[in-house]
Amino acid sequence: MQTSPLLARLTESLGPDSVLTNPDDLQAWTADWRGLYRGHAQAVVRPRSVEEVSRCLALCQQDGVPVVPRGGNTGLCGGATPDTNASNVVLSLDRMNAIRSLDTVANTMVAEAGCILGNLRRAAADAHRLLPLSLAAEDSCQIGGNLATNAGGVNVVRYGMTRDLVLGVEAVLPTGEVFHGLRTLRKDNTGYDLKQLLIGAEGTLGVITATALRLFPRNDTRSVVLAAVRSPEQALQLFELLFERCGARLQAFEFFTGDCLDIVLAHAEGVQEPFAERYPAYVLVELGDTVDENALGALLETVIGDALERGLCLDAAVSASLAQLQALWKLREEISEAQRADGPHLKHDISLPIEQIPAFMTTMEARLRKQAPEIRPFIFGHFGDGNLHYNLSRPAGAPRDWATTHGDALTAEVLDEVMRYGGSISAEHGIGQLKRHAFLQYKDPLELRLMREIKRVFDPAGIMNPGKLL
Amino acid sequence: MQTSPLLARLTESLGPDSVLTNPDDLQAWTADWRGLYRGHAQAVVRPRSVEEVSRCLALCQQDGVPVVPRGGNTGLCGGATPDTNASNVVLSLDRMNAIRSLDTVANTMVAEAGCILGNLRRAAADAHRLLPLSLAAEDSCQIGGNLATNAGGVNVVRYGMTRDLVLGVEAVLPTGEVFHGLRTLRKDNTGYDLKQLLIGAEGTLGVITATALRLFPRNDTRSVVLAAVRSPEQALQLFELLFERCGARLQAFEFFTGDCLDIVLAHAEGVQEPFAERYPAYVLVELGDTVDENALGALLETVIGDALERGLCLDAAVSASLAQLQALWKLREEISEAQRADGPHLKHDISLPIEQIPAFMTTMEARLRKQAPEIRPFIFGHFGDGNLHYNLSRPAGAPRDWATTHGDALTAEVLDEVMRYGGSISAEHGIGQLKRHAFLQYKDPLELRLMREIKRVFDPAGIMNPGKLL
Repeated sequence: MQTSPLLARLTESLGPDSVLTNPDDLQAWTADWRGLYRGHAQAVVRPRSVEEVSRCLALCQQDGVPVVPRGGNTGLCGGATPDTNASNVVLSLDRMNAIRSLDTVANTMVAEAGCILGNLRRAAADAHRLLPLSLAAEDSCQIGGNLATNAGGVNVVRYGMTRDLVLGVEAVLPTGEVFHGLRTLRKDNTGYDLKQLLIGAEGTLGVITATALRLFPRNDTRSVVLAAVRSPEQALQLFELLFERCGARLQAFEFFTGDCLDIVLAHAEGVQEPFAERYPAYVLVELGDTVDENALGALLETVIGDALERGLCLDAAVSASLAQLQALWKLREEISEAQRADGPHLKHDISLPIEQIPAFMTTMEARLRKQAPEIRPFIFGHFGDGNLHYNLSRPAGAPRDWATTHGDALTAEVLDEVMRYGGSISAEHGIGQLKRHAFLQYKDPLELRLMREIKRVFDPAGIMNPGKLL
Repeated sequence: MQTSPLLARLTESLGPDSVLTNPDDLQAWTADWRGLYRGHAQAVVRPRSVEEVSRCLALCQQDGVPVVPRGGNTGLCGGATPDTNASNVVLSLDRMNAIRSLDTVANTMVAEAGCILGNLRRAAADAHRLLPLSLAAEDSCQIGGNLATNAGGVNVVRYGMTRDLVLGVEAVLPTGEVFHGLRTLRKDNTGYDLKQLLIGAEGTLGVITATALRLFPRNDTRSVVLAAVRSPEQALQLFELLFERCGARLQAFEFFTGDCLDIVLAHAEGVQEPFAERYPAYVLVELGDTVDENALGALLETVIGDALERGLCLDAAVSASLAQLQALWKLREEISEAQRADGPHLKHDISLPIEQIPAFMTTMEARLRKQAPEIRPFIFGHFGDGNLHYNLSRPAGAPRDWATTHGDALTAEVLDEVMRYGGSISAEHGIGQLKRHAFLQYKDPLELRLMREIKRVFDPAGIMNPGKLL
């Protein structure tokens, strides 16, 4: 296979060290990190510049060879894992990892697609600026993948999704043409905003090679409260109060059920009981500001004091130090890992109109219990954005293969209920391979048709990331 | 013409009071408010529902009749004025003016396209919420037009453009198909974000009939400073300081030259000299917050005190009352009117990478003075977004038709220099008819091709707003 005409041309064009073809070398590039998907590829190409990406794509298109763009391999839906077509070429952006510019007057950063998100966040912080995109995989994921999946994370309630942070995009279309959209302008009303299509397209329209990102003032002052609540209704009331009173300071509003805390306390190391007793659910709130630590803490104390008085929460612990702040966050951050330790489970990354969350949680659980009375839901997530990670663990005593045998039926129940509430079957993880079936089932036919026709405009030969999304 | 088959079908479908055909009645609908453009139409249709819009579009497409969507007629580029084709149908959204919902828990408002922006802002304020879109025409413009042009305004530095405030869009495609995108979700990663194409498309892809908008906490506390600066460089340094220190409180950062203040003081009524002397330029800054009036004023005083000490501004007046705040804003708001009183002039709504503004202003003025040594530039705008209204008034003593005879050559100089600096020829006003020639000249050919092909996907018969944008 090493001598196929395409591989010879790729090698000639990019150099032998940029084209991997040894089957052992390819192993790591043809599976997702969770081990859910394994595909095939004839080669992995690792270009070093936008010109090399362009040459690679033009050569692949010429032969009608599918191209699978690959970032940090941290996705949860198999969007960067090739399908089983042996002729796939995996295009890794990992070598395009330069920060091209960082400007504290313009408050912009231009970064190549292969930059690790955590590195970009640290570079911004060193310049007294904030790149607000923050998520569990930030020290492995690449910014190009963040754009391709329109990643979310914990600060969306304040700063929005990746899309909202992007000023410009440089990309290569499957024809090899370069889309020179790397503008840093705040305002540019000259025609259709094409970069919006590339963001969230999961590599099906082209390959993002660089992006211009907005930076914000660094919020050196942070204050966190963990509030115990009786119910999602109470969490919602608390959200309304905090939103109204704290304004733009509100930068995280996370929710988790008492069951989530139980497994964290059972499985995670270095975590502490936050309260003298356990409660039905918890809300973790972070405020951030550029100025005056005391004022921020005092504001949070006052608002939470009001909430306790008005019966909008049952108990509350406000961080009095950075160590306490981190300890409170750890209770939220350890949930995924604790659930993994607890055993196989089904993940659902859903979003709802936020005001519908309490009703959804009630009807959803009743519906699931009809199917599986002993099922154990672990519900947590970015409540302030309407985004729940609605995960289901097997009933005590169920066989290890429970998720495999019962998964599809239970997932269908969840997604159907989400649609009934006007929600989204993928809040922040995207579609990839994992949710493609559901996506094609639930998406409005008109939108599907428009998406397919737009796909043809960008990728007439249909070589970009086949089997994903559309 | 009243008896043409299309008009008969429209009248039958929508009722006679929804189809205007009397030439006298049509006058008001076939010109723009500035009187720059006058077109033709066989009818004005005023549907009352999305179903009526759908029937109207389907009937027009059947006959290949062009449709020109019309909002509040406040645009500056002729985007809602029909061209000279006598068969045009103007589709006015003015009767679709209901607020379908306003939710202070979800912080969303669903409004029909014909709602007047100012009414929406007041409805939000009455519910203790803020709809941040704010611009001079807010009491006449319609929200559908704001979306179609991706309107900007004075609070973009904090809240972004119209695009950034939109959660969902309902629209009708020229086929009559309804795009049911009126979601209120904060997160929805299920495929290409199609609504982004409709926003800013200037009615060339379909007719926006309703939108779901984000609401924010109401900032009841505001504080304003007018700072005198030596130069745009100083304004930029001041911006950097305020951005870093005041964080999200910074909600307006406006700039105007001393010449602008001079004409305001000469022509406007009820304005006062802000300082004992005149200065080369001024910056108007507004901070806003949900809490504590005194803390906000104190913060602004401290930061401006630092700025004066470090030589980042020459003089400053901080508002101590709402009356003073309004008086300072009036100096900025009256510029357009004062310039109109001063006589004919050329308007340029441009944006630049913000860090390039000082260099641009220097080279631009030198370039213009070569062509027209006595030209009088009046430069003001949303400096914090890199957006300048770079307006040129005729030299003293030049004939009244100066703008007509010299306009194209001078505008070409301005736009060419903007492109040299990586700026945009239309920051917030869009393209319409006015800038179409320049748009087609300057836009990257690849982007133009993609836009045209996307246009064909949405509007295969090419009936939507011909002669605008593409």
